[in-house]
Amino acid sequence: MTELILSLDVLDREEAVEIAESCAPHIDAIKIGYPLALRTGLSIAEDLSGLALPLIADFKVADIPNTNRLICEAVFGAGFDAVIAHGFVGADAAQTCVEVAHRHGGTAYIVAEMSHPGATTFFHGGVAEEIAALAVSCRADGIIAPATRPDRIAKLREIVGDRAIYSPGVGAQGGDLDTVADLVDGVIVGRSIYEAKDPGAEAERFSRIRR
Amino acid sequence: MTELILSLDVLDREEAVEIAESCAPHIDAIKIGYPLALRTGLSIAEDLSGLALPLIADFKVADIPNTNRLICEAVFGAGFDAVIAHGFVGADAAQTCVEVAHRHGGTAYIVAEMSHPGATTFFHGGVAEEIAALAVSCRADGIIAPATRPDRIAKLREIVGDRAIYSPGVGAQGGDLDTVADLVDGVIVGRSIYEAKDPGAEAERFSRIRR
Repeated sequence: MTELILSLDVLDREEAVEIAESCAPHIDAIKIGYPLALRTGLSIAEDLSGLALPLIADFKVADIPNTNRLICEAVFGAGFDAVIAHGFVGADAAQTCVEVAHRHGGTAYIVAEMSHPGATTFFHGGVAEEIAALAVSCRADGIIAPATRPDRIAKLREIVGDRAIYSPGVGAQGGDLDTVADLVDGVIVGRSIYEAKDPGAEAERFSRIRR
Repeated sequence: MTELILSLDVLDREEAVEIAESCAPHIDAIKIGYPLALRTGLSIAEDLSGLALPLIADFKVADIPNTNRLICEAVFGAGFDAVIAHGFVGADAAQTCVEVAHRHGGTAYIVAEMSHPGATTFFHGGVAEEIAALAVSCRADGIIAPATRPDRIAKLREIVGDRAIYSPGVGAQGGDLDTVADLVDGVIVGRSIYEAKDPGAEAERFSRIRR
């Protein structure tokens, strides 16, 4: 079954923990980005560790290899299970993230393409495909590709084979869960769940309409 | 005169403050990346505020517009004066960083090209030039371009005109200060200074050989 990943993009530690707890029975992983992590510190991983769900640091790591290594060491050292890194910075920089992840028994996913309108400028025209191939050659555990563009996901699937594809952009950004659930290994849902009156109930609803 | 920017990429708060203090008389700004900020939190900006030097958050912000906005709000809210963002993610995402920076009376710089070997894959072939043009159209305050490739800086200067160019890669990464100092507005030096036996003396030495 397609995994349901909660993108926990609130800004307050207590609110984050509360939402995560109410959604936990219905989700397969929690994704945390910099907006929350910069406010709470990486100790947010510890706060959520009791839920026994994989924690993904969606830091879209995009620096030189040495800095990527230091960022990923901090991420896994803090108790995260996975990291999301950019591939457009090149194979050496991306591979560093994968190596640190694997050394810690974790996983690393490479952003092949993004979900917002401006992403088309530099990710289209063959670049996303090249990044997907780079992810495979770097032995990444999978890629990130936008639910807002299902045709693109199908294209990238041809390249990554049975490696995981996780898709953000479902819900508030316009991606349709039904359309993408068949194509990907996991859908990432944020605002539609955490901005709902009852996030737990909304997570449950999303978890039911997965294929 | 070409500015000298200290890339403060140590991992310990006290060590960072000590090095910054000893270098302060000889440098024009301090650049802080995620490896340090993830360990100290954004409060590192407060710890360094007494030095009265501009603090640059080199977070290579590379997310969707809404997330970029939240990251930059956190950065400037914490007392940083500038942010470094990626242009590769597209105009909407980059422009968001510029807007937040300017709203806070700060500045924003766009990475046009990077200094490590793997960066050539996706930044060459015209992309860095396109990103530099994007930085201009987004009203960014300048770009980041690698001291390791002076010929590239000259090319990018044609595009950005009198907007600032800051160059990392001097010293440990192989970039030569003499060669690039004439071409850029500021050189960014990290390991050569903070790994020196006497960082303050090394910063002074670098400050003297600037043109």
